[in-house]
Amino acid sequence: MQDVSIPSRLSIGQYLINRLIDYGIKDLFGIPGDYILSFYGMLEQSPINVVGCTREDNAGFAADAYARLNGLGALCVTYCVGGLSVCNSIAGAFAEKSPVVLISGAPGLNERVNNPLLHHKVREFRTQFEVFDKLCIAACELKDANTAFAEIDRVLDAATRYKRPVYIELPRDMVNVVPTNPYQFEFARVEPDPASLAEAIRESVLRLKSAARPMILAGVEIHRFGLQDLVIQLAEKMRIPIAATILGKSVVGETHPLYVGLYEGALGESQVTQYVEQSDCLLMLGTFMTDINLGINTANLNVQNCIYATSEQFRISHHYYQHIPLEQYLNGLLQQDLPICNRPVPPRLPHIENVEEKIEPDAPLRISKIIKLVNEKLTANNIVIADIGDSLFASLELVVHERTDFISPAYYTSMGFSVPATLGACVARPRERVITICGDGAFQMTGTELSTIVRYGYAPIVIILDNHGYGTERFLHAGDWKFNEIHSWRYSLLPEIYGSGKGYYVADESAFAQAFNDAISDNSCVQIIHAKIAEGDASQTLLRLAERMSKTV
Amino acid sequence: MQDVSIPSRLSIGQYLINRLIDYGIKDLFGIPGDYILSFYGMLEQSPINVVGCTREDNAGFAADAYARLNGLGALCVTYCVGGLSVCNSIAGAFAEKSPVVLISGAPGLNERVNNPLLHHKVREFRTQFEVFDKLCIAACELKDANTAFAEIDRVLDAATRYKRPVYIELPRDMVNVVPTNPYQFEFARVEPDPASLAEAIRESVLRLKSAARPMILAGVEIHRFGLQDLVIQLAEKMRIPIAATILGKSVVGETHPLYVGLYEGALGESQVTQYVEQSDCLLMLGTFMTDINLGINTANLNVQNCIYATSEQFRISHHYYQHIPLEQYLNGLLQQDLPICNRPVPPRLPHIENVEEKIEPDAPLRISKIIKLVNEKLTANNIVIADIGDSLFASLELVVHERTDFISPAYYTSMGFSVPATLGACVARPRERVITICGDGAFQMTGTELSTIVRYGYAPIVIILDNHGYGTERFLHAGDWKFNEIHSWRYSLLPEIYGSGKGYYVADESAFAQAFNDAISDNSCVQIIHAKIAEGDASQTLLRLAERMSKTV
Repeated sequence: MQDVSIPSRLSIGQYLINRLIDYGIKDLFGIPGDYILSFYGMLEQSPINVVGCTREDNAGFAADAYARLNGLGALCVTYCVGGLSVCNSIAGAFAEKSPVVLISGAPGLNERVNNPLLHHKVREFRTQFEVFDKLCIAACELKDANTAFAEIDRVLDAATRYKRPVYIELPRDMVNVVPTNPYQFEFARVEPDPASLAEAIRESVLRLKSAARPMILAGVEIHRFGLQDLVIQLAEKMRIPIAATILGKSVVGETHPLYVGLYEGALGESQVTQYVEQSDCLLMLGTFMTDINLGINTANLNVQNCIYATSEQFRISHHYYQHIPLEQYLNGLLQQDLPICNRPVPPRLPHIENVEEKIEPDAPLRISKIIKLVNEKLTANNIVIADIGDSLFASLELVVHERTDFISPAYYTSMGFSVPATLGACVARPRERVITICGDGAFQMTGTELSTIVRYGYAPIVIILDNHGYGTERFLHAGDWKFNEIHSWRYSLLPEIYGSGKGYYVADESAFAQAFNDAISDNSCVQIIHAKIAEGDASQTLLRLAERMSKTV
Repeated sequence: MQDVSIPSRLSIGQYLINRLIDYGIKDLFGIPGDYILSFYGMLEQSPINVVGCTREDNAGFAADAYARLNGLGALCVTYCVGGLSVCNSIAGAFAEKSPVVLISGAPGLNERVNNPLLHHKVREFRTQFEVFDKLCIAACELKDANTAFAEIDRVLDAATRYKRPVYIELPRDMVNVVPTNPYQFEFARVEPDPASLAEAIRESVLRLKSAARPMILAGVEIHRFGLQDLVIQLAEKMRIPIAATILGKSVVGETHPLYVGLYEGALGESQVTQYVEQSDCLLMLGTFMTDINLGINTANLNVQNCIYATSEQFRISHHYYQHIPLEQYLNGLLQQDLPICNRPVPPRLPHIENVEEKIEPDAPLRISKIIKLVNEKLTANNIVIADIGDSLFASLELVVHERTDFISPAYYTSMGFSVPATLGACVARPRERVITICGDGAFQMTGTELSTIVRYGYAPIVIILDNHGYGTERFLHAGDWKFNEIHSWRYSLLPEIYGSGKGYYVADESAFAQAFNDAISDNSCVQIIHAKIAEGDASQTLLRLAERMSKTV
């Protein structure tokens, strides 16, 4: 990725397309608009597959999910009415370190003389740039042919280096401009400090050797930086148990014999929580210390016993090392004479064991039962996408077989992420079967992206958990509030609107089991299961969470 | 509005609610979320009616339309996942001078110690504030009890003074805080310069007296500042003809005998264009010189002959006056000895005369025919809302009977404005019948807000012009581009999803005429008319626009 193509008579638009392809972009999401039409024309004639979405923010969520699976995602929209519609999606990608390239059209430079009131303009021509400068790790306006190629390379490098979104603004009269100056761009070089790295590794090994109960806690950066192989090598070499954070879920295939489960502080299964908190050397790899990862600050981890290694910070106990790249650190550790850990992994928790569930006919439908029934059918060929609220909490109990096959906005928690993310996952992994779990409130926000899923012929299974509103909030703020209620939809009829798909309405255990079986069997089209949940039902995690959060909301 | 209530033991949340009510807010739009739940609870127990929407950006559009009809609108959302979802709606309100109050929750101040990674946080706790500081005319964070009341008054005053959106961020642990310090806020005072005002009025009267063909061109600010009465008084006193800009449409009831029509430069009816451009004294009142208002810069107005008066600028010919408030200027003019103008108003254009349209059975459905059939039925009891693209261009030919009964984002042109705006208009004017004209691409973006319209029992008529995609773009960028195509929906079945409403699918003239008649007759529920447009059809205005724009896109 560090090679710089030497352009010959390429236009700025064409160079941007070439570099996106170099960085692994095969598909791109978005909606055209008049300030970006020339570039859309260029894209349509390029090898990049352009996936038209119903809304720009959905394109942003789709690009985010695509980035999580593909290593980089991209979307392309028009000026302000398009760009400012994706602020929230891009903010989520920033918060959860998903490298998304946002390309926006803009008025031509030659149209800006005397600052006219051109349509789509908000305040100044630069207003949109200034907004995304706050929400992205790097941003550029391609206003100068002399620097345009270097600016493209700078921001794409930043996206992959930091795994955060970047912003590229392309005035419509610059798309076809061919720079004439010699191109140069010096990639920023980051070199570890060898002495510092050696000491950090030496101290880590000493800690691991002297520990009686060491273990690994793996987090989201292991997904993002593609370090799953190194982590599993390390675990297998030391025979050391691994837990994952919520945002890191599926960083290790969850059927791996060294996998203990998800660590969620006081919100999680007490068996896993105790196992992690009793560790006297916790090797935390690429974990974010978010409130949700920390079980809404119920985690009880003793910093004294932690080795905390992320792309941004390296700390052992209470002291810090600088310039310790995560990948070099893992490689360095692997080359050491490492101790063998014989700490036994606890037996599987009974409720996530793969035993056939008994169905009680006509029993009201409970979320925990849905999860057990889904769990029974999960295979290595599935990707699971969970929206926020109880969709997330319940899905945490699913056993995801393959690495990085679980996607959820478990830190930024933007409601409505899941259906557009389903599109992104289908595009990135067309051969895998996506299973999506989504609340009714979330579905009403962004569920129209099913239209695009139908249009391109994908066949995910979308389970809508209907608790007639913002169910999680009922547990967070006591009282019988009207504002948590939403309008009832007949979701199972949506295939008639979109012209394809199969819909199911289920309200008891046996009906759900039957519908889910049918949905698994039918991969010819999208399957929508409207699951009417028993009144007042919630996952155990939500009940534990609610108890904690009700004190601060 | 300039009175300051003296609070006694009011909390910050309660003071905010009281001031919203003082400023005329009876209804508020939004979606709850955990950083704003306490305030939502307070709202639910207040006299303000909270309208829950499906998406935050839709709540923003609804609040914008409500503001255009009510004088001020408001929405309330949670931190970042909610707030950053309304950037585009708020940007549109800024661009088109609609006073919308955006209230956002935020993490409590006591949760921010050591800058933790709390869910919904993007970068810094202040990131969302910094974004809206760019998109609003005034913004505040209510972090200090000593200044909170004054800050609330400052931003609400700015919203009504400048007719632009404002931002209020309310940390969740400040909602119930009761300030103990004496409250004071000095409203900014703006006083006209009497000598400057007198000279501007004197020069205006001289110009009007010496002109042979004077006329008024009225714009959007006349709506926003509620100056319709003054403008019509002025016109009637002088018997001077009036035209309106596109964004100003319906600033005067369009059946008024002095009303000439809409001025749209070379894009408009040539009869109106010539009439305006031949004026030797054009009194431009509250008009925005946007590209679309100027007929995509085809306007041919001689500055030498113009008196240009807006809230921001006052110019006669090529010289400027400062500190000339628009309202005082109009009042001042009205007190003068004004000339009587005897310039005849041209006869109504034949295609907008209210004559019964002939229906050709089975004739393919053309946009111009739809507009004529709608025109026949329009009464003073209708509000017309047009989305962008050909929905707007075609709707410009409608004759809107009452003032400020036409709403369209005719400058910012954000696709998808119309359906959520329909909700906002229904809430603001429950006794009027809203007729909405919307493209299929726009409907797919935000049409789910029909759910809320159904939920609250409103009965607008929504006409979806189906040209299988982004039809306007086909005219702007020649070529048979796939990216302009969208997925087909069976819109007329949507009532089955939402549980109420009547749907019609029509593809020829007689079917449309019948469906529209039925829809007008049935005001028991929402009416959705899916109008399949003849292939390649477009309004005359779009054809003229396309010819101009294709040169720059």
